[in-house]
Amino acid sequence: MSASAASAACDQPAACRTAPLPVLGRDVLVPLVTGGEVTYAALDYAASAPALQRVWDDVAAYAPYYGSVHRGAGYLSQLSTDLFEAARAEVAAFLGCRPDDQLVFTRSTTDSLNLLAAAVPDGTEVFVFETEHHASLLPWRRARVTYLSAPRTPAQAVETLEKALAGRDGHGEALVCVTGASNVTGELWPVRELAAAAHAHGARIVLDAAQLAPHHPVDIADLDVDYVAFSGHKLYAPFGSGVLAGRADWLRDAEPYLAGGGASRTVARRADGGVDVEWHTTAARHEAGSPNVIGVHAIASACRTLREAGFEALVARERELVGRVLTGLAAVPGVRVLSLFGEDAERVGVISFVVDGWNSSHFAAALSAEYGIGVRDGLFCAHPLVRTLLGGEQDAPGECGAPEAAPGERSLNAIRVSFGAGTPDEHVDRFLTAVAELVRDGAAWNYRTEDGRCVPDRSGRPRG
Amino acid sequence: MSASAASAACDQPAACRTAPLPVLGRDVLVPLVTGGEVTYAALDYAASAPALQRVWDDVAAYAPYYGSVHRGAGYLSQLSTDLFEAARAEVAAFLGCRPDDQLVFTRSTTDSLNLLAAAVPDGTEVFVFETEHHASLLPWRRARVTYLSAPRTPAQAVETLEKALAGRDGHGEALVCVTGASNVTGELWPVRELAAAAHAHGARIVLDAAQLAPHHPVDIADLDVDYVAFSGHKLYAPFGSGVLAGRADWLRDAEPYLAGGGASRTVARRADGGVDVEWHTTAARHEAGSPNVIGVHAIASACRTLREAGFEALVARERELVGRVLTGLAAVPGVRVLSLFGEDAERVGVISFVVDGWNSSHFAAALSAEYGIGVRDGLFCAHPLVRTLLGGEQDAPGECGAPEAAPGERSLNAIRVSFGAGTPDEHVDRFLTAVAELVRDGAAWNYRTEDGRCVPDRSGRPRG
Repeated sequence: MSASAASAACDQPAACRTAPLPVLGRDVLVPLVTGGEVTYAALDYAASAPALQRVWDDVAAYAPYYGSVHRGAGYLSQLSTDLFEAARAEVAAFLGCRPDDQLVFTRSTTDSLNLLAAAVPDGTEVFVFETEHHASLLPWRRARVTYLSAPRTPAQAVETLEKALAGRDGHGEALVCVTGASNVTGELWPVRELAAAAHAHGARIVLDAAQLAPHHPVDIADLDVDYVAFSGHKLYAPFGSGVLAGRADWLRDAEPYLAGGGASRTVARRADGGVDVEWHTTAARHEAGSPNVIGVHAIASACRTLREAGFEALVARERELVGRVLTGLAAVPGVRVLSLFGEDAERVGVISFVVDGWNSSHFAAALSAEYGIGVRDGLFCAHPLVRTLLGGEQDAPGECGAPEAAPGERSLNAIRVSFGAGTPDEHVDRFLTAVAELVRDGAAWNYRTEDGRCVPDRSGRPRG
Repeated sequence: MSASAASAACDQPAACRTAPLPVLGRDVLVPLVTGGEVTYAALDYAASAPALQRVWDDVAAYAPYYGSVHRGAGYLSQLSTDLFEAARAEVAAFLGCRPDDQLVFTRSTTDSLNLLAAAVPDGTEVFVFETEHHASLLPWRRARVTYLSAPRTPAQAVETLEKALAGRDGHGEALVCVTGASNVTGELWPVRELAAAAHAHGARIVLDAAQLAPHHPVDIADLDVDYVAFSGHKLYAPFGSGVLAGRADWLRDAEPYLAGGGASRTVARRADGGVDVEWHTTAARHEAGSPNVIGVHAIASACRTLREAGFEALVARERELVGRVLTGLAAVPGVRVLSLFGEDAERVGVISFVVDGWNSSHFAAALSAEYGIGVRDGLFCAHPLVRTLLGGEQDAPGECGAPEAAPGERSLNAIRVSFGAGTPDEHVDRFLTAVAELVRDGAAWNYRTEDGRCVPDRSGRPRG
């Protein structure tokens, strides 16, 4: 059943939709500054999502069988090697990889994009929107980079890219780097259309799926993108692994990302005193050092769990939660949701906003201290985008001691609420109640800056 | 009590020495080709050690509290951030770091050395013995590298280095890279003396402690080395993290290892269309992307567990096991233990050997299939060293289908047995019994090569 079919068939979505998936930490109690304890509402999925219970169970079941990968003669080494390569196949299937794609295990999306940046042919021109996460903006140190201005509609994104590609000099290769879903606004980017535009101009495209893959099926062949990168820790598998998958040729021809064992096939001293190295041409070329088999196993487990749970039904449920949050925030005076593409944009469960009269760090601290809700405040490693959305050029001090923005003034940073497959309705309800109460009544406590954090002023007193 | 005091005070070492530390997998049963099951004897610690039970327990206790590090306003984010930085302090204390050292969390020793290689000033000359692991031999792609010939005594290592450093042209910086304990022979290198030699000639030194740190206290200040690198997965904490610690200046001045969020302090569009980036100057500079907080927490737990268990007593116990293995192997006809520094060399629990008339892959496969013992065969990512020790220049086919070396002929590769803090006496006893029986009676089954592995020929039959 497709996502739209699931929505369409359901007159009372809350009754017939799928349940959230069990995650670790769902019963963790945290103290409130106002007294007592409450279960923690993890609403910072866009930074790191909790581990799926099933992922944890799979890791726990495997851990006693852990052994050296690829090289040991023992039973557990062979079992671990089989598991490692089975994980590669599982993740490749999850991403819909083409038969000749290569899938390299990295440590994160940041690592994956840095690997690709190290692998692009000399002289490659890279095109990247200024609205991207720093992990997509900054790694292209070996390339000529063209930063594209923030589009205000998906169609404008495609036009902007087409115009830029049409203007390139045609020397060397070209690569477009684009997010699937913004880590600030959660808005979906027109990946398929951007891929078509890239290919029409002889360029390749890499999809930063860090924020898309946990919330939406990604099919590399169907989207016709050349590379996909994502992180385990945002996909409910926080054990230090990530993924880069895609066209084998650049990866096969590139210098090994790390030099060391595992990447090297043979090493021999030369008569002149140097060494000759023959490198692997498979994914191992870029996986030097002992692989993080637990991290990789965890990602495969998450992919399997999402698939078996019915990813489309989870998407439908999350879409409903997004709607509730947007509707709820719209009802609170002085709350402004940040958006690049406007109200009709399709989003994953990542929503940033500012509140008139509030410093965002202060607001986020009060959500935590007074309601047990974990969100994030700041510029979200996407400084140019957030500054554009806030309409200012300020750096974000992020200190609750800083003057609060007066009504009508520009905020210095923003608040981001984000959620996913493990989020119960209650977390969203509590969040909307908290926002409304804070805006209406103010924070119950005073806050001060301590070690760069905004914390309740325990030497002081409740407010008012 | 020091290690030597523990040995000296103990007339019956088996009775008064410390017990092995509990590790995951200690009760795992594996099938034997000869019938039945047996507890797995993990004797491939030099590749990857099992997780300490305590490390696993600490990871399991933390996992429900996992949250985004450094950036979240929520309670679990702040708890995770505190835990992450507490881990840094714990590991720095474990290594005896100086107050102004920087400690960067990486994914492995290989990653740590590649980071250092990316951070050395332009024009740096690197000196490395040809006997090193590929992770120490190969990462110096930005440097001029001098490979030093294999020394046959620790004193000769110092002489060789001194001579090489005396001959350098004096332009630019110099860095010596040396292992603390060989990953092939387990032999200890004269790190303190090499550090003194390096410093006398104005060079720095990095200690590859991948094989030393799990087996022996490492004190960066006491050894007077400039940098130390090690891996969690060899230190009983296999969750995808490693460490580089040492002098801050090169690290602070270097280009960020990965470009992305976390490493970048501010990013802003310039009027000319480019971007200005201000990078962090702390360890965060080289830790872009979300940190692997579980992996880092696991390493800190391992450091704490070794310290609290009495690392010196564990060293004394391991030294006794090394003695038993060497004595036991010496009693088996046709077994030759590989050594660079000779019989008197001090070793950690890493011992490689060859057996007359046996292909090493075949021997290792029989240890696994017929005795449930996991060792490793091959060239151990130290090809030049193993070739030197075997006295040949062959590549290692590692296939049990290859002709076995006849008595007196050179072996094509070697067998490595390795152990540590979690190894019970029974594993060592079983291993010595197995070696003696295989040499005396031959393997009970026929073996063939399958997918590059040497496996029992189940389509065939037991031998003889």
